[in-house]
Amino acid sequence: MSAPVATPTRTSSRQALRNAKALIAKIRKLNPALFEKDFLRTWDKSQDDIQTVLLVAQVLEELVKENIDTRVFHGGVAVSNFRDNSTRTRFSFQFAASLLGLDHADLDEGKSQIAHGETVRETANMVSFLTEVVGIRDDKFIGEGHRYQQEFAAAVLDGFMNGVLPRRPALVNLQCDEDHPTQAMADLMHLAKEFGGLENLRGKKIAMTWAYSPSYGKPLSVPQAIIALMPRFGMNVVLAHPEGYELMPEVIETAGRMATENGGSFQVTNSMDEAFRDADIVYPKSWAPIAIMRERVTLPEREGPAQKELERRCLEMNAQHKDWECTEEKMRLTKEGKALYMHCLPADITGVSCKAGEVAATVFERYRIPTYKEASHKPYVIASMMLTSKFAGVADLLNHMVERGQPRVENF
Amino acid sequence: MSAPVATPTRTSSRQALRNAKALIAKIRKLNPALFEKDFLRTWDKSQDDIQTVLLVAQVLEELVKENIDTRVFHGGVAVSNFRDNSTRTRFSFQFAASLLGLDHADLDEGKSQIAHGETVRETANMVSFLTEVVGIRDDKFIGEGHRYQQEFAAAVLDGFMNGVLPRRPALVNLQCDEDHPTQAMADLMHLAKEFGGLENLRGKKIAMTWAYSPSYGKPLSVPQAIIALMPRFGMNVVLAHPEGYELMPEVIETAGRMATENGGSFQVTNSMDEAFRDADIVYPKSWAPIAIMRERVTLPEREGPAQKELERRCLEMNAQHKDWECTEEKMRLTKEGKALYMHCLPADITGVSCKAGEVAATVFERYRIPTYKEASHKPYVIASMMLTSKFAGVADLLNHMVERGQPRVENF
Amino acid sequence: MSAPVATPTRTSSRQALRNAKALIAKIRKLNPALFEKDFLRTWDKSQDDIQTVLLVAQVLEELVKENIDTRVFHGGVAVSNFRDNSTRTRFSFQFAASLLGLDHADLDEGKSQIAHGETVRETANMVSFLTEVVGIRDDKFIGEGHRYQQEFAAAVLDGFMNGVLPRRPALVNLQCDEDHPTQAMADLMHLAKEFGGLENLRGKKIAMTWAYSPSYGKPLSVPQAIIALMPRFGMNVVLAHPEGYELMPEVIETAGRMATENGGSFQVTNSMDEAFRDADIVYPKSWAPIAIMRERVTLPEREGPAQKELERRCLEMNAQHKDWECTEEKMRLTKEGKALYMHCLPADITGVSCKAGEVAATVFERYRIPTYKEASHKPYVIASMMLTSKFAGVADLLNHMVERGQPRVENF
Repeated sequence: MSAPVATPTRTSSRQALRNAKALIAKIRKLNPALFEKDFLRTWDKSQDDIQTVLLVAQVLEELVKENIDTRVFHGGVAVSNFRDNSTRTRFSFQFAASLLGLDHADLDEGKSQIAHGETVRETANMVSFLTEVVGIRDDKFIGEGHRYQQEFAAAVLDGFMNGVLPRRPALVNLQCDEDHPTQAMADLMHLAKEFGGLENLRGKKIAMTWAYSPSYGKPLSVPQAIIALMPRFGMNVVLAHPEGYELMPEVIETAGRMATENGGSFQVTNSMDEAFRDADIVYPKSWAPIAIMRERVTLPEREGPAQKELERRCLEMNAQHKDWECTEEKMRLTKEGKALYMHCLPADITGVSCKAGEVAATVFERYRIPTYKEASHKPYVIASMMLTSKFAGVADLLNHMVERGQPRVENF
Repeated sequence: MSAPVATPTRTSSRQALRNAKALIAKIRKLNPALFEKDFLRTWDKSQDDIQTVLLVAQVLEELVKENIDTRVFHGGVAVSNFRDNSTRTRFSFQFAASLLGLDHADLDEGKSQIAHGETVRETANMVSFLTEVVGIRDDKFIGEGHRYQQEFAAAVLDGFMNGVLPRRPALVNLQCDEDHPTQAMADLMHLAKEFGGLENLRGKKIAMTWAYSPSYGKPLSVPQAIIALMPRFGMNVVLAHPEGYELMPEVIETAGRMATENGGSFQVTNSMDEAFRDADIVYPKSWAPIAIMRERVTLPEREGPAQKELERRCLEMNAQHKDWECTEEKMRLTKEGKALYMHCLPADITGVSCKAGEVAATVFERYRIPTYKEASHKPYVIASMMLTSKFAGVADLLNHMVERGQPRVENF
Repeated sequence: MSAPVATPTRTSSRQALRNAKALIAKIRKLNPALFEKDFLRTWDKSQDDIQTVLLVAQVLEELVKENIDTRVFHGGVAVSNFRDNSTRTRFSFQFAASLLGLDHADLDEGKSQIAHGETVRETANMVSFLTEVVGIRDDKFIGEGHRYQQEFAAAVLDGFMNGVLPRRPALVNLQCDEDHPTQAMADLMHLAKEFGGLENLRGKKIAMTWAYSPSYGKPLSVPQAIIALMPRFGMNVVLAHPEGYELMPEVIETAGRMATENGGSFQVTNSMDEAFRDADIVYPKSWAPIAIMRERVTLPEREGPAQKELERRCLEMNAQHKDWECTEEKMRLTKEGKALYMHCLPADITGVSCKAGEVAATVFERYRIPTYKEASHKPYVIASMMLTSKFAGVADLLNHMVERGQPRVENF
């Protein structure tokens, strides 16, 4: 029960503060176009945009280590709208809100009257009267998630332009059918730390591979987020999956384009071994067959026998690929057998969370703490997306936090 | 996705600040008795009370436009207790709490032990130990909602008087069976803005009419709130509904008295056309037949076959009056065909949210943005009810916010 | 509706401030080891620990009376994890968080993915990235609640030690299978006030007795908490229950040891009358038969027919002891017939919340307000457990609050 708490006065070497200032200097050199924009998909953003979000997140992380109060909103609400389950992203969003001084309100469509005929357009305005940021997860149905977020964004813009809303809330995509930017950016932040800087990612091989799971309907957005983002930093991305587990063609096209434009590479294979061979990083994760995901959208009702039947077929199809597991043997194929294992969590761990799953227990346990660290960046990434959208002078703002130097927790 | 955000430095013409100061001066001229009182029904309040709440709400709205921090509680909780669904009022209450610096806690009777034999008297105290304000919605059962709020108020008063509570939380009625004061006051604020001041409402005709909806058990509290409040500002209120859709007699009596005392008028008719003819404002909205609402309270159980049967009869009865729809043709009957359309939202829009409903799609679309603005005042009205109940010197307090001049959102 | 609100300027006699300073001086004389520890069971804590938590809670209570802002966290989250229903403890935890400036987030295992194979170890870290305190209730299953809290504590310690978490969140036990420290400490605080100081509790007789209730599976943790804590202040504790309602042997042993070590006494009897005779304090409360609670843990599924059957047997067994009720007649057995009646609430009141229950309506009504006051201390006890775990110099910190002297609610 007893453990040394990292109380600032004892841990602070002021190193964190020096790091923060160095990062702020880097931010000043960039020319992002994030201000007054939503963050829905990484591929709508420039290299400077992505790097700015990453650097701002890193500054916030350092300031928290340094016990510096980072609140810049004094009143105001951050609204979350989860249309699918979530633990870590839900908490990460609340952490981000708290970090910046925003109160949190959750749009729970069970408790609300959305069921009773409210349109998205209307609801979006009703929950935004004093709202600075809205985070949305809508990842269950292909062709719907991103569209819902666009409709929401258009609605609050309409409300702001027509004088309904005093300020326009910024949208943050907490996972849609196409992209999962807060996850992929946290993953990128993890890689930057593990490899000693973004620049060191150039030429590294990352294997984004499908893995077996006894579960139905896992979204395609995580692998899509990874293959679209990582080539932009000169990484060699190999996507591997069994036939039938293809990703959305437009995202595949985007991944290729990003590789070409940024000196990375992107290949697709149906062999997990080929993907793992000499990989510096492996990201084995399950997702649903795209045909099933597309069929799912067409079903008359979203619960019921037709869904059950679809689930049965999905599991049956998955079961044909139980050999797609991240085992010790597979890991030995990677660069010196020491590739960095990544996962967005929760992983389906063979013999732990299920009989047969995505990863062998010994492999996962060896990389358990690194996967936790990977996840730990998400609150800062979300907070960074909030700040960069709401403030034109984010570098000055971060510097203001440092100069203000108020303790986050009183020093006693 | 890209839109100019109303960042204070760019939008502030300081006009908002001048407006705020002029409104504060008006408040000083009034003599309200709101301090240390709950806000349960508008008809328990004086003219000065009503006008003070309205002016304070307007000041808060201006200060937000001006990006001024309006928090006056530094710790303390605002508790909401929704015994019926809600989106906008739920969010409006959280917005109001955030605006004043209160943390929010929701009394969810599902999660709580109220089901397990707790009395209202006890629960009211248990959720109030550090509570400044309690907002309650209890609108489903005639004869119960207002009584529940009175019991709650009596319980916390008892707790405060006996030294259980350090402070007495103020109650705000977020809709009961009799009144919906936060809605009606937001509506009044909307009218004051649309017609250029309360004084300009005198002599205006407002048609509060029933409208068809394929829904069961909509409360009577909105129309009751409107007919009781609007005559107080010299308006000519016409209530229209089919036979069987009468409102509570005591409220009808109140509406008449308010008209007589304040130089307005109040009439009841069974003709929608008569109500619409030459109206300056129309408020077509559905509610349940009063006989059915009274019968509903007597049923042994609140879910189950008896309720289903009651619902069937209600819908059958409604269906006989599908012609009670706010169509373009009906709108042409109004003053120059240009009456202001109002609704508390969500509206049942024909061909949009239902096959046949309260209002034609073209009419609603033309007034969609105004109805959003109408709703946008609610957070400020609720915050005003909180402030006026908790602070004796509300004008000085508002002035203090202005003088303090802290930014609500940092300027960067 | 109208009641004098205790606005600071009118109520403050500055007496509260003098009390606070005197209490702070007492705290300085103690030598606790609470810093960087969790608060899971009172019997893991020293006498100085217990007294410090009590004194700090009393200071916070005085400062609130004095309208002094007690917030010492400026950003940061308090997470609650309720694995059983709760009203008062849920609100008390939120009040405590608000009191210290922490935002609140609830780990709702329904909304989360814990169901989907997440391990405690992982979840604990995922909800703790910016978390200062975690409050856990897990009281339903003997042998599980305390163990879950230990697993959670080990997980966040592991995460902190490995650099996943910037700070280690402190755990507060909001009721487990063994102890209910926030309840027992609030009860102790109540006794200290009722008898004019802890020192006056020495030699007082408290009867912790079972009482009849028509309910299934009430935890043993409240009586266990009382018999383990009260002997430490020289009280004579008599535990009374029918055969079959024994408490956990290890806690019985602890109670005896605490009595021996601290000059109190501890006896067990099967006679309610014997326990009541000449008692200064009575605490009649129902709990489940230990054999049934042990069997409950072994059942294959936690809902379903086997549970229903177990419930039937439990109620049948309870029903044999309806004479175990705190009646007026029983009360006459106590010291001058005037023993202080205590209950953790909600009580099963005969003829009020059930046909036959724990206490007669007239007895409960006579002590209703005192039981509310008893409960009112809980937010301060929880806040005290938070402060003493997170701050080494808690006396200096409390003094800082006083010196800073910021109003909790603006004075207007």
